[in-house]
Amino acid sequence: MLLSSLYIIGITAEAMTGALSAGRRKMDWFGVMLVASATAIGGGTVRDILLGHYPLGWVKHPEYLVITCIAGILTTGIAKWVIKFKGVFIRLDALGLIVFSIIGTRIALEMGLHPVICVVSALITGVFGGLLRDLMCRQTPLVLHEELYASISALSSILYLSLLNGDVTQTYATVITLTVGYLLRMAAVRFKWRLPNFHLESETSAH
Amino acid sequence: MLLSSLYIIGITAEAMTGALSAGRRKMDWFGVMLVASATAIGGGTVRDILLGHYPLGWVKHPEYLVITCIAGILTTGIAKWVIKFKGVFIRLDALGLIVFSIIGTRIALEMGLHPVICVVSALITGVFGGLLRDLMCRQTPLVLHEELYASISALSSILYLSLLNGDVTQTYATVITLTVGYLLRMAAVRFKWRLPNFHLESETSAH
Amino acid sequence: MLLSSLYIIGITAEAMTGALSAGRRKMDWFGVMLVASATAIGGGTVRDILLGHYPLGWVKHPEYLVITCIAGILTTGIAKWVIKFKGVFIRLDALGLIVFSIIGTRIALEMGLHPVICVVSALITGVFGGLLRDLMCRQTPLVLHEELYASISALSSILYLSLLNGDVTQTYATVITLTVGYLLRMAAVRFKWRLPNFHLESETSAH
Repeated sequence: MLLSSLYIIGITAEAMTGALSAGRRKMDWFGVMLVASATAIGGGTVRDILLGHYPLGWVKHPEYLVITCIAGILTTGIAKWVIKFKGVFIRLDALGLIVFSIIGTRIALEMGLHPVICVVSALITGVFGGLLRDLMCRQTPLVLHEELYASISALSSILYLSLLNGDVTQTYATVITLTVGYLLRMAAVRFKWRLPNFHLESETSAH
Repeated sequence: MLLSSLYIIGITAEAMTGALSAGRRKMDWFGVMLVASATAIGGGTVRDILLGHYPLGWVKHPEYLVITCIAGILTTGIAKWVIKFKGVFIRLDALGLIVFSIIGTRIALEMGLHPVICVVSALITGVFGGLLRDLMCRQTPLVLHEELYASISALSSILYLSLLNGDVTQTYATVITLTVGYLLRMAAVRFKWRLPNFHLESETSAH
Repeated sequence: MLLSSLYIIGITAEAMTGALSAGRRKMDWFGVMLVASATAIGGGTVRDILLGHYPLGWVKHPEYLVITCIAGILTTGIAKWVIKFKGVFIRLDALGLIVFSIIGTRIALEMGLHPVICVVSALITGVFGGLLRDLMCRQTPLVLHEELYASISALSSILYLSLLNGDVTQTYATVITLTVGYLLRMAAVRFKWRLPNFHLESETSAH
């Protein structure tokens, strides 16, 4: 299936970003595999726990875990090469974000949950892996500062839900959402689209 | 119901504290909504996951999530006003703490769990939201240093359990626990009651 | 049963390491009990949540929680004594690691899960408590930098599975795994065995 193959690409790309972060913290191989796996499948894991959707994906399909661990370890060997091809990387990550968002939406849909929860499910699947990576590597979570990322996950989910609601078939809805979401994310990176920031001084002085 | 209305007040107040913390970290709107929601409903979520109490409250009632997101975003607009009315804020937070503790106790009771677990359930409901907020905003968790907070959550739970055990009706038990717990918390803030600290020097010198 | 008694020793030892870390962060008694309990039973809790293995151990047996809280508080009184007997401590921790790994393996086995997941279950049980302790006390997680720790957990699990597979009885498999795992861990500490590190410069310069 289209979505399954894209899912494998998505977790591989995310595992590589995790391994690179672990490398910046001088972690050992175990740390690299842990951070790579948490980045790649942490979002889906958190989603499944919150929705009570058992068994978890990687418990049922341990091969996903094997893929993320191998991708993590291989990345340590080709890190310099990976960094040079940063463009490829950002593209794979953008694809992964939309794939994860569609999968999150579908799982909540299949559980018969409210559309709001479907969008939240997409968001958690798309965003929590990177959040866990940044917490484990003690970096300020990128998703809370960066160009539009979470918003694109939510928008993709809303688009996908609307298409299904408008009687578009699942395959078309998937292809359209993937295309639009991917282009939006690449545009957000290129034009540095951001959400408004909320900046509160620690010491607010009365005026 | 009394407890339901108080619950709405509680999650709104907690969402506002979350948004203020996010503002101190210059997060964007998504970050503000995430931290606000985690602060408000994170404690109940962690409790439900630990007890295996599915579906989670906000999955069943997505409107709670909508409330915390809106409260978070509105707070960014009125932050300076909110900070001036710090007194109101501390009172709402104190009320929230006791309401969360009573709800936590009751859920564990209804699941037929041991009284020790009922108190733990109260504690997790009352305290974990703030803990998540501080972890996400990379502050040293207040609850581990501040005036009595967790202890008042535990005491409220014990009081509530004792009242029910002494054949007081649920409504009276709720009102009495709310009053006593609230006054205790306000007294702890005013008189700076604290638990003993445990301070271990990193390099302990022999004497 | 052998494993049950060893489990009690293991959670007591782990609770003490948690309390010592909390002391270095000047936490109050509540913080000490929280960190002690998270260190001791956090690994099993994370494992049970990931595997959907409900009710959690300490919800069913609240006495485990009572033990870890008491161990944590007592440690604050005898911290200087504990630090002097560091050798005893490292031995208890090594024993705990292997006991946790065997228990993790068995729970996954009893749930009929894939051998890869049995090893992951051992790893999570053995390693996540310490990881939570270090995150809560804002230290760089030791497990990601230290002498072989996670690897010994995984190796113990693989050894235990192989023995059972080779028709060794459960009791013998337990005793053999405990002995070999313990000796491996002590050797790793003494000879400073480590996994290769992956160190990536933040600013990689082309050459």
